[in-house]
Amino acid sequence: MKKLVVFLFALFLLQVHTYGQQAIFQGAPQIVSPEIHSDGSVTFRFQAPNAGEVRLTGDFLPPDGWMPGSVTMEKNAEGVWSYTTRPLSSDLYGYAFIVDGLRSMDPNNVYMIRDVASVTNVFIVPGGQGDYYSVNKVPHGTVLRTWYDSPSDQYEQKRRITIYTPPGYENGKDKYPVFYLLHGMGGDEEAWINLGRTSQILDNLIASGKAKPMIVVMSNGNVIQEAAPGESSLGLYKPGMQLDGTMDGQFEVAFKDVIKFVESRFRVIPRKSDRAVAGLSMGGFHALHISRYYPNTFDYIGLFSAAIMTDERQASNPVYAGFDKTLQAQKDNGYKLYWIGIGKTDFLYKANAEYRQKLDKMQMPYVYRESEGGHTWTNWRLYLTEFVPLLFK
Amino acid sequence: MKKLVVFLFALFLLQVHTYGQQAIFQGAPQIVSPEIHSDGSVTFRFQAPNAGEVRLTGDFLPPDGWMPGSVTMEKNAEGVWSYTTRPLSSDLYGYAFIVDGLRSMDPNNVYMIRDVASVTNVFIVPGGQGDYYSVNKVPHGTVLRTWYDSPSDQYEQKRRITIYTPPGYENGKDKYPVFYLLHGMGGDEEAWINLGRTSQILDNLIASGKAKPMIVVMSNGNVIQEAAPGESSLGLYKPGMQLDGTMDGQFEVAFKDVIKFVESRFRVIPRKSDRAVAGLSMGGFHALHISRYYPNTFDYIGLFSAAIMTDERQASNPVYAGFDKTLQAQKDNGYKLYWIGIGKTDFLYKANAEYRQKLDKMQMPYVYRESEGGHTWTNWRLYLTEFVPLLFK
Repeated sequence: MKKLVVFLFALFLLQVHTYGQQAIFQGAPQIVSPEIHSDGSVTFRFQAPNAGEVRLTGDFLPPDGWMPGSVTMEKNAEGVWSYTTRPLSSDLYGYAFIVDGLRSMDPNNVYMIRDVASVTNVFIVPGGQGDYYSVNKVPHGTVLRTWYDSPSDQYEQKRRITIYTPPGYENGKDKYPVFYLLHGMGGDEEAWINLGRTSQILDNLIASGKAKPMIVVMSNGNVIQEAAPGESSLGLYKPGMQLDGTMDGQFEVAFKDVIKFVESRFRVIPRKSDRAVAGLSMGGFHALHISRYYPNTFDYIGLFSAAIMTDERQASNPVYAGFDKTLQAQKDNGYKLYWIGIGKTDFLYKANAEYRQKLDKMQMPYVYRESEGGHTWTNWRLYLTEFVPLLFK
Repeated sequence: MKKLVVFLFALFLLQVHTYGQQAIFQGAPQIVSPEIHSDGSVTFRFQAPNAGEVRLTGDFLPPDGWMPGSVTMEKNAEGVWSYTTRPLSSDLYGYAFIVDGLRSMDPNNVYMIRDVASVTNVFIVPGGQGDYYSVNKVPHGTVLRTWYDSPSDQYEQKRRITIYTPPGYENGKDKYPVFYLLHGMGGDEEAWINLGRTSQILDNLIASGKAKPMIVVMSNGNVIQEAAPGESSLGLYKPGMQLDGTMDGQFEVAFKDVIKFVESRFRVIPRKSDRAVAGLSMGGFHALHISRYYPNTFDYIGLFSAAIMTDERQASNPVYAGFDKTLQAQKDNGYKLYWIGIGKTDFLYKANAEYRQKLDKMQMPYVYRESEGGHTWTNWRLYLTEFVPLLFK
């Protein structure tokens, strides 16, 4: 037994050697990167004896204008470049190395998340907010990727969708409330489950009693897409922004297909008090319009850094037809929560402030949450952990 | 509308610029990589004006001993390195760049698959075998990641499992046959669905009428693991081989929990004629032993490059206790298919030949498939497309 295992292991090392980092057979130090210390500081390491300069970039460094900041790493005698951060607050962070000007993944960290057309290494600093994003020893829900019929847009296609069902769903007969959670521009049905850590956040909030068990539906808001890049018949293409028809009302109209599918396929409570809709950026725009397109359908609405347009831009967009009237109807019909969250430095801050003024003028109630930072997944994960506990109470 | 979209798009470009490739704002050529030509040749491109040498490595190049081969790329005036292959046969391939000795991902290709502790870019050459691995315009099944109770091993834990249900499963009342598909050493419940392209292969085989609709169960064969790396409470750790208890009979014993879970949770046909079990490498070892541990349970058995041990190694391994007797019982009970596939250059070729001799001696029938190549996912995807059409007929 041992012999075979040793042999298989040797073969495995050869394969790692081949496709992985080069150090294993060379007596070089085993690289650990990132190494998260107990005080929250993090050490990054990258073996590149011949590189002239290795920099670290990440969303935990002070930004450089629109760009995340970067710092120079230091090389030791073994050719390992390293950098240790100040103690970081508990959260999920992204980073990459820049090796002689070229962006490079960390070969010692297989955890990466795609955001549109780029891929970033990630890590979690535990002990606070980051614990919501970690898999903990708690009951876990189920994550499904499936397909539904969408005849209500001009493309009339099968579309891919990601759905979270809470722990206990499969073994019971209870019906559950449904939370529709929408991605932003450039995102797709993989965005919230990967970048957003939805299943981890829900598992943890439900286990701690902070949130009610619920079904979370992560649809694809780009009506021209069957599915996320790589998951459709378009093949393994380079992702782009897929702008056509994303912000002109088509998705809002086609959204009835999502609701119909979910309510026929899953054990749900099909009433207003047990439906929520929220989205980030473009998904906030979708949530805003969906919640007024479908009167008396949602008691909980969340706009996370929503791409709300100012008046002059609204004129030419069919989605805004009858805006004031339907908003007034939404107000008159009543709802339990209209939640608006935005970061202080978000480029959509002003548009959101103008929208709040509009709601104030209409005396349409809402809850406002202003966070630090800008138009980032750091904020959207944070908003999700804050919004979900408010639902279906 | 247009203004906002333009603004959002500009912001998006800034973000791509930041985290993505550097060329966008510099007037450099937009890089397409890999570019798959109609004759099956493939051009790879990598922008690195200051690099001294960029090499391409991939599983489509002639191997260099145990290592995949590599070739030097050529730099043009714009600092873009490129290499065009000979026409490749239709398949799914993996590759990486080696930039001045450092392995690097292709920044223009977001499609990557993790194999144990390394990550590789992938692409598909269409027009043949590769079409089985592509998402086509056919009905799609559903892929679930869920958790089941596993009290039958010493760890008594919740364990994560990946399950494919065929198109039509959710909307009907039919019961389905079940195919248990097991990964190799260093793999986990993500291996077959990601590296193995199981959902694409099943969708395509079912759509073309070559395979019967079936449920495919991809469990985790490492009894000490709750879940794949990054999906358990161990956090985002560096994956290793997780050797403890993987090849000593523990998983085979605990496998009853998998069957129990699947047969209680899904609409299955719970009889021998509608159960199959197969696995690759260590998973072939598991399939071999599971199929004799559970007498009269499986009519279809598949050993893909199975890690079969020769006699002297068997002596010390408890899993082989009563080997000949239970194999004889398996033969006497009867089965429909015992399928053995292996590549001509696989390091387990000899062990498999010896096992076939043993079966010959016992007059225990099997189907033998010898392919080109070695212990690779190229072969395991191929075996899956050949094995599945033989099931439940």
